[in-house]
Amino acid sequence: MTHRVINFNPGPGTLPEEVLVEAREALLDYKGTGMGVMELSHRSKPYEEIHFGLMNGIKGLLGAGDEWVVMLMQGGASTQFSMVPMNLMTGGRAAYVVTGEWSQKAVAEAQKHGTVEIAATSESEKFRRIPRPEEIHVADGVDYLHVTSNNTIYGTQWPGDPPAVAPPVVADVSSDFLSRPLDLSRYALLYAGAQKNLGPAGLTVAVARKELLARAPKTLPTMLNYRTYAEKDSLYNTPPTWPIYISYLCTQWLQRHGGLAGIGERNEAKARLLYDALDATDFYRPTAENESRSRMNVTFRLADESQEERFAKEATAAGLVGLKGHRAVGGLRASIYNALPVEGVEALVAFLRDFEKRAG
Amino acid sequence: MTHRVINFNPGPGTLPEEVLVEAREALLDYKGTGMGVMELSHRSKPYEEIHFGLMNGIKGLLGAGDEWVVMLMQGGASTQFSMVPMNLMTGGRAAYVVTGEWSQKAVAEAQKHGTVEIAATSESEKFRRIPRPEEIHVADGVDYLHVTSNNTIYGTQWPGDPPAVAPPVVADVSSDFLSRPLDLSRYALLYAGAQKNLGPAGLTVAVARKELLARAPKTLPTMLNYRTYAEKDSLYNTPPTWPIYISYLCTQWLQRHGGLAGIGERNEAKARLLYDALDATDFYRPTAENESRSRMNVTFRLADESQEERFAKEATAAGLVGLKGHRAVGGLRASIYNALPVEGVEALVAFLRDFEKRAG
Repeated sequence: MTHRVINFNPGPGTLPEEVLVEAREALLDYKGTGMGVMELSHRSKPYEEIHFGLMNGIKGLLGAGDEWVVMLMQGGASTQFSMVPMNLMTGGRAAYVVTGEWSQKAVAEAQKHGTVEIAATSESEKFRRIPRPEEIHVADGVDYLHVTSNNTIYGTQWPGDPPAVAPPVVADVSSDFLSRPLDLSRYALLYAGAQKNLGPAGLTVAVARKELLARAPKTLPTMLNYRTYAEKDSLYNTPPTWPIYISYLCTQWLQRHGGLAGIGERNEAKARLLYDALDATDFYRPTAENESRSRMNVTFRLADESQEERFAKEATAAGLVGLKGHRAVGGLRASIYNALPVEGVEALVAFLRDFEKRAG
Repeated sequence: MTHRVINFNPGPGTLPEEVLVEAREALLDYKGTGMGVMELSHRSKPYEEIHFGLMNGIKGLLGAGDEWVVMLMQGGASTQFSMVPMNLMTGGRAAYVVTGEWSQKAVAEAQKHGTVEIAATSESEKFRRIPRPEEIHVADGVDYLHVTSNNTIYGTQWPGDPPAVAPPVVADVSSDFLSRPLDLSRYALLYAGAQKNLGPAGLTVAVARKELLARAPKTLPTMLNYRTYAEKDSLYNTPPTWPIYISYLCTQWLQRHGGLAGIGERNEAKARLLYDALDATDFYRPTAENESRSRMNVTFRLADESQEERFAKEATAAGLVGLKGHRAVGGLRASIYNALPVEGVEALVAFLRDFEKRAG
């Protein structure tokens, strides 16, 4: 029997056990090829099945039609913070909604390429909430509007899709990609590091409207031009084949579990279970404003903050790991991405009650 | 018994079987943590052992002192083609030795950032050889000299280190990194995609003199500035943890097999065995000039080229896969990187003789 803890890490985080068991069989001999997945040529048929399987799997889950292209890249969302303005800020101005540290980093990179207009920010409220639609003011004539759909550090998430606005919407969906259904018509480009909801670290996915990519200046470095990926099916150079393989298995796992509707319901139920337990007592205090609570990263404090260290330590001893909050804000955080099972949240809820009895 | 072929793929290519067997145990529960390697937080102790283990392993193998820094990046050598000029071409001019398609691509990217002086090229000889030291003319005052140490498509390799020159030498060592000892004093920066000699696709390594990195303009995108990696131990954002883990195991495997001296001898012996067999008959014709023959990618033709298709097909049926030449040049190619065992080359030599008997 394999020893497995309940892994609340904020990413890289837990992966579906079914996927890991399947991957184990593919390390030395993938489907009778006599080669492991990492040893396949990226120009071979067995690898192409994986590669296009992932791209089509993502399109299928999102319900994206032929006007969309999936790009498999590297470098994380941090690289996208630069690629977005390099490719799309062709008029020299873009608008950003600032909802936390990742948005701030995106703004800082964009400012190297042009003027950033802040469409809204909740910084004065320490990012405890997402700005409401009526608070968002998008300047005329900007090249795009950038939003961050979920904020791992502050435990906030847009309640739904961003409001309909004139410029194309670019969304950093790194921490809630493929975790719930979304209305694609509201977006022009979505990007995400894979290591939270989709798969392991080392793969960055972007899903874009093809027409948007025509903007990119021809003088861009080849590997920083979205068209290189779109036109070459993300096979211009050697892609990160193993992270793509694991992500492919994860999309199949998602499909088996009801697609985005199914996983969305399950994630909603997990979050409700946890927030209900936290709300049921004054011993715990969720940090995000109600309307903006994340279904991915549940951030909370103990009324007696001096007990938090003990909480995290005893939780780890009980097999519940990764519950310490981000070093920038402290406190506690349970990341409950797609692959974190309902039973894991139930175990955490039981621990919450038990700890309160002992320490309350 | 696991079915394994002999894998002559040009990269991604074969990995040491010992490494794959060890990795299999780390997928679901790494060293009793209850998490697989892909599920470890990149800020956790168990992961840090892997991360710094790889960086120190590379420094140890190269014998690199404290004036050197190892950087773990993403995006492949193709991304380095841009990062090198963005970070180092601060005077606006650099020299390149052109020895094949990869050098040409490096030149094309560098030209987006400044003036490229061609220090030597063997293009007129269809890249059948590496220019000799006396043919290399490095213009005065260039920011650096760029070379490509091994050319996968044309099967050529520098016989040793590049000549001592005034400007810092930047080498794309993607296809012979850690395959033989080298004289580090001749270089200022080495870079390589991992997927040939070091590990799987999805990791790019650069080894640089720290003083060189001071040049980079502050206005560079954060993820394209070498200093981001050097100053943050390649942990500024989430690194590609699994490719790093596998590469770490491969450096340990290299150490167990005698380090660079040991692997260098073994690679030399493998190449000699194969070239001797090809030279022993007019039935086969190695394509690279003698002095420039690669110990990594052995390119050859049949005297009767119309038989090459049959050769590749029958070799595959005999469990010898990946022998077709690059689509740009045709012919045949055996890539015999670090992890390809001597027994694999012996099997190929036996097949060469057998095929000649049947088809000659």
